[in-house]
Amino acid sequence: MPLNPNLAAVFPPPVMEARRWVAETAFPPDRPLLNFSQAAPVAPPPEALRRAMAEAVADDPEMHLYGPVLGDTPLREAIAQRWSVHYGGQIDAGEVAITSGCNQAFCAAVTALCGPGDAVMVPVPWYFNHKMWLDMSGIGSVLIPCDAAMLPDIEAARAAMTPAVKAILLITPNNPTGAEYPPALMEAFYDLAREHGAGLIVDETYRDFHSGQGAPHALFAREDWREHLVHLYSFSKVFRLTGHRVGAIVTGAGRLAQIEKFLDTVTICPSRVGQFGALYGLRNLGQWVAEERDEILSRGRALRAAFAEHLPDWRILGAGAYFAWVEPPFPIASDRLARRLVAEQSVLTLPGTMFAPTAAEGRDWGGERALRIAFANADAAGLETLATRLAAFRP
Amino acid sequence: MPLNPNLAAVFPPPVMEARRWVAETAFPPDRPLLNFSQAAPVAPPPEALRRAMAEAVADDPEMHLYGPVLGDTPLREAIAQRWSVHYGGQIDAGEVAITSGCNQAFCAAVTALCGPGDAVMVPVPWYFNHKMWLDMSGIGSVLIPCDAAMLPDIEAARAAMTPAVKAILLITPNNPTGAEYPPALMEAFYDLAREHGAGLIVDETYRDFHSGQGAPHALFAREDWREHLVHLYSFSKVFRLTGHRVGAIVTGAGRLAQIEKFLDTVTICPSRVGQFGALYGLRNLGQWVAEERDEILSRGRALRAAFAEHLPDWRILGAGAYFAWVEPPFPIASDRLARRLVAEQSVLTLPGTMFAPTAAEGRDWGGERALRIAFANADAAGLETLATRLAAFRP
Repeated sequence: MPLNPNLAAVFPPPVMEARRWVAETAFPPDRPLLNFSQAAPVAPPPEALRRAMAEAVADDPEMHLYGPVLGDTPLREAIAQRWSVHYGGQIDAGEVAITSGCNQAFCAAVTALCGPGDAVMVPVPWYFNHKMWLDMSGIGSVLIPCDAAMLPDIEAARAAMTPAVKAILLITPNNPTGAEYPPALMEAFYDLAREHGAGLIVDETYRDFHSGQGAPHALFAREDWREHLVHLYSFSKVFRLTGHRVGAIVTGAGRLAQIEKFLDTVTICPSRVGQFGALYGLRNLGQWVAEERDEILSRGRALRAAFAEHLPDWRILGAGAYFAWVEPPFPIASDRLARRLVAEQSVLTLPGTMFAPTAAEGRDWGGERALRIAFANADAAGLETLATRLAAFRP
Repeated sequence: MPLNPNLAAVFPPPVMEARRWVAETAFPPDRPLLNFSQAAPVAPPPEALRRAMAEAVADDPEMHLYGPVLGDTPLREAIAQRWSVHYGGQIDAGEVAITSGCNQAFCAAVTALCGPGDAVMVPVPWYFNHKMWLDMSGIGSVLIPCDAAMLPDIEAARAAMTPAVKAILLITPNNPTGAEYPPALMEAFYDLAREHGAGLIVDETYRDFHSGQGAPHALFAREDWREHLVHLYSFSKVFRLTGHRVGAIVTGAGRLAQIEKFLDTVTICPSRVGQFGALYGLRNLGQWVAEERDEILSRGRALRAAFAEHLPDWRILGAGAYFAWVEPPFPIASDRLARRLVAEQSVLTLPGTMFAPTAAEGRDWGGERALRIAFANADAAGLETLATRLAAFRP
């Protein structure tokens, strides 16, 4: 039977794969599963938001009907206004599109920028759904390494640029490493993209949990940002709306007219209820988000403290926002290690192999040693338990 | 700046284009706009469904969190059970995937079946979002004509088959023509696909408004349906859930494992609230849907009666479910006619040019004469007004 060879060659969804490991395992009652696999809130949104959404579902017919392809105007306006302030730029509502989650925002961005034979420059480790989209779309990936601080290497990027590269991809704070990219590095990549007539895709899904205050970069202050910048955002984490699928793209209006074709064809419009929730959150949950951010930053500190105490030989290569990227002091391949940690310590993490090429494919990208820990759902006690379980693991 | 040439060549979303015509027009107070452009309910779902969804949003944390990529198990089970009965087949929940609307179901089906250089066989007139996905994905379209009853020509299809064709696409009841394809024709296309090792994609978005009783075809009774059939469905029309984006795919489990990669990458999971609404509808709204169907069938009859009375020279080429496909007795190009009808008669329909190649591209596919009328939102009085306005139009 016919099968798209590009899709067949794509690896299966890592999070679903990890769910299968869990499903196959019987956890002892005194050592229940600790799940550090997914960057997803496990608690629902705050009650005020749930109540407001419920009222809208009951009373507002619009919640149930098609909306505009590029999203509801009030939400686009609210994003334009807030992003303008946050980034110190001038963003118009016509330069904002709402998407069915930030994965879709990335798919739309790549489809707008890249045709057959084109490529995207991707730092390794990558976010797996990004790599999956490039692979299934037949778009090439020009991989570049990160340095010891898990920052993408601008000199390696410069050396690797080719005419086929139509976009450079940056994620900050990073998934999977948690690294926060400095503004100067962002500028350098913007300039590199610009010099080569390429786009710069910046995924800031985890922006609201950045450890710094103020604008994380000055790209929206660049005069020609509409031409070169494609900015991606997600409402999934900040307001705990993962089940509603709401993300956003900011870029020039001309590119959005192309993206509108893609979004119309793939989903027609984003969930109206989800958009309502995102708008409510922007208008009403500023203080709540500030507290969430403080809590998640404190969890990052708790993770570092627990590792320092119980796992002095483990290396934390990166940690920030939702994620830590860590290396154990023993040479077990990360895919085997992750499965053994499920079976032997009831700890679910994702192996670095899901975020990098295997060494068998050429150079060593580090994926075979590292684990990604999505720590934001665990409190300090849970992170302490994680560390003691990892310390109890006998390689 | 980089731009995917495949996307650039795709026509803009027709429904958004039509909305712009409306936005540019000032309608006289005594002749307000009658909108026959979109296959979309204008009323919200029944109150019991809205109330149940509102309660779930307020009280069930799951509504706000990620779910499985292929959809929630209870909904997959309910579809498997009901489709098995409706079609006289044996469908397992593992052969059902939930999608973010039926457009996405089509995108996933094509991405599973077709790689670079492959093609889909598409009857003309097409549904525009299908054509847009093929074009932006770089998948070829092998176009085949319909006969006088707007049924796709099986002999033309046989003659046009090539090794590149990895899928044949059928929509029944059809968008844009309303034609209901006879079971024997469906079987013939299934056999044609099977002989060539291709898939048969059957889009039954409008199934619930079919004028016949019982199974509309016997394809699920075929022993090898899991290999060759990819069945698409939408919850948007039947329960008025367009704003929630819920559709479904039924096919073999092996193909769903490939489709899971696509869905995970594009949206991660369908809206949980939308899935809740679809399941509630399947369990509780059978009688309500039966009444809706009766009403829509009566509107189809009212349309035919109004045309017979006021527009004896117009031809109804097809009419059923949500749509009629009609030809005026004068030679105005349909894209000009549709715009003039907005301006001069406050009637919005979509021109046939949105559903077919233009004559300039070679043979005459009929799109330059026909209009699509999405009549299901208008009651008998509204359809009478439509006919009198069309009759008042002076070419």
